[in-house]
Amino acid sequence: MPHRDTTKIVYAGKVKIGGGGVSVQSMCNVRTDDAGAAVAQIAALQDAGCDLVRLAVPDMAAARAFGEIRAKTDMPLVADIHFDYRLALESVAAGADKIRINPGNLGGKERAREVAHACAARRIPVRIGVNMGSVAKEIEQQYGRTPQAMVQSALAYIRLFNEFGFDDLVLSLKASDAVKTVEAYRLMSAVSRYPLHVGVTEAGTAYAGLIKSAVGIGALLLDGIGDTIRVSLTADPLEEVRAAKGILRAAGLLNAGIELISCPSCGRCRIDQIAVANKVEHALRGVDKNLKVAVMGCAVNGPGEARDADIGVAGGDGCAVLFKKGEIVRKIDESEIVTTLLKEIGEF
Amino acid sequence: MPHRDTTKIVYAGKVKIGGGGVSVQSMCNVRTDDAGAAVAQIAALQDAGCDLVRLAVPDMAAARAFGEIRAKTDMPLVADIHFDYRLALESVAAGADKIRINPGNLGGKERAREVAHACAARRIPVRIGVNMGSVAKEIEQQYGRTPQAMVQSALAYIRLFNEFGFDDLVLSLKASDAVKTVEAYRLMSAVSRYPLHVGVTEAGTAYAGLIKSAVGIGALLLDGIGDTIRVSLTADPLEEVRAAKGILRAAGLLNAGIELISCPSCGRCRIDQIAVANKVEHALRGVDKNLKVAVMGCAVNGPGEARDADIGVAGGDGCAVLFKKGEIVRKIDESEIVTTLLKEIGEF
Repeated sequence: MPHRDTTKIVYAGKVKIGGGGVSVQSMCNVRTDDAGAAVAQIAALQDAGCDLVRLAVPDMAAARAFGEIRAKTDMPLVADIHFDYRLALESVAAGADKIRINPGNLGGKERAREVAHACAARRIPVRIGVNMGSVAKEIEQQYGRTPQAMVQSALAYIRLFNEFGFDDLVLSLKASDAVKTVEAYRLMSAVSRYPLHVGVTEAGTAYAGLIKSAVGIGALLLDGIGDTIRVSLTADPLEEVRAAKGILRAAGLLNAGIELISCPSCGRCRIDQIAVANKVEHALRGVDKNLKVAVMGCAVNGPGEARDADIGVAGGDGCAVLFKKGEIVRKIDESEIVTTLLKEIGEF
Repeated sequence: MPHRDTTKIVYAGKVKIGGGGVSVQSMCNVRTDDAGAAVAQIAALQDAGCDLVRLAVPDMAAARAFGEIRAKTDMPLVADIHFDYRLALESVAAGADKIRINPGNLGGKERAREVAHACAARRIPVRIGVNMGSVAKEIEQQYGRTPQAMVQSALAYIRLFNEFGFDDLVLSLKASDAVKTVEAYRLMSAVSRYPLHVGVTEAGTAYAGLIKSAVGIGALLLDGIGDTIRVSLTADPLEEVRAAKGILRAAGLLNAGIELISCPSCGRCRIDQIAVANKVEHALRGVDKNLKVAVMGCAVNGPGEARDADIGVAGGDGCAVLFKKGEIVRKIDESEIVTTLLKEIGEF
């Protein structure tokens, strides 16, 4: 199966999509025609580590505001268009760095061609967004509501855009089900080198949606599939960025920052493991170092289990041992755990 | 790659491990020698849907309490033993339904043999728990701290137990890193038919640990690997069960209950999508039906996208359409969404 290092490279503004690396996307949930609110939300997403922001363009007021927003941020912006190809043309003219369309709902081939030509003229890529729920009727009749139907749908749109002489495509094939999503992307990845925007659509609220997204996006990332990701949560978009970064980290694609390794605690534990781990995590939130920190409840999981950690503690009875790279440094009192770890980490 | 349907079957009490299906495990974090606290925690875990509970047995007081706990619950119980083989013998005698050991720390081959014979006499399985942090020194010297080292370690312990005439094994190969964990289980699954207990060890606190576990366990489950799972969180064990069930659901292995499909909302949305979805999710928590319920912010994601849903709403401007299986039933006011959905769901 091809790896993300081998996908075609396109650019959304300064962000490279394809050819290695995985960028993080989110989408504004404020009204696009409220440019001030959109600019503020984009700034917050940027602070959180978002690489690309999408904006819905449901009408001409939004398309015009898109230009105003574009002028007020250096964040690469993606215009999300449905039904009306003129909104796509207007967004492209307003400076969109990429557009996302479902070519099936733009009002016919000639209108899709106009959009492709406008994007080609501005050298911006197009994401063809195939969702399980919006597969063309004739394909669904042949393939059912299956991952294969999404792949066939994407292939048909690729042929269409290639016929227009347009090749700067990004593809997505999302279902609201992680199993079908993973299958669709695996199939697509085997037959195409276009970069893939990966996500589980309509995944749900903050908790259930996080799990669905971590399972679906995570499984694909581990297989080398996925060039840009969007976690869809019915929640503040900042939560999407936080989740995306967590998934990238879990998949071994983000190593910056503190990684906390902590055991679940069990009947062996004689310190307040949950409280200590949460306090340590909270205290380290602002620390800008690349370190593995371990908080272990007892000697079984102690220095040995966690000797990959740069620094850690293993609980005893009301006390703990402090260790670095598996070597015990000294014994400390339970009450000193958090402050000692923080002080020692300051010295790294 | 072999599928979980083809793994060897063992039994921990009434729970089948192997040969298809995935059970959910957790572990008590109260002291085992406080039998009352353990029994209460086991009851809470049972209510939450846990199939198997593990208890640490760090000393003889805990081993004795194990028998007392065993008498007071019908939950299959796993004794977790380190260092002292007599604790294993005592736990087996006290009625453990399964034991979890690291054969490398029981004090030598003859002691491991005694434990195997005791388990064989009671017809209970043994989980050989290989963790990245506790791989035998000679194997680590040859293979490094790698997934391959965990596999070699497991294979050596399998040979040892087979030499004892013991074959009712469950294997785990956990790292605190989802990438290495997934690789280890994939390698193991390719060379062994013993059922696999899957988890990411010391995954971290409630949020980061959930993501790591969903990525690691989820990726394996999607590939048909994993016969029993444990989500390790530095949090209340009830959170482990909730997470495990969420991961099983996301991996398509649990279909019971309400599944909420909800879009993230965007600039197109004219209802308070996040509030509505959260209210619907909360209101449906106690409903014991197998339904897909959709809460969509607008017409783009409306009945069409969500026509797999048994029932749903798609927001308009201060209103919504109610739909069933993609067919619009009627228009309702935004303020009626939650009550209408609940009432309609009551009629399914």
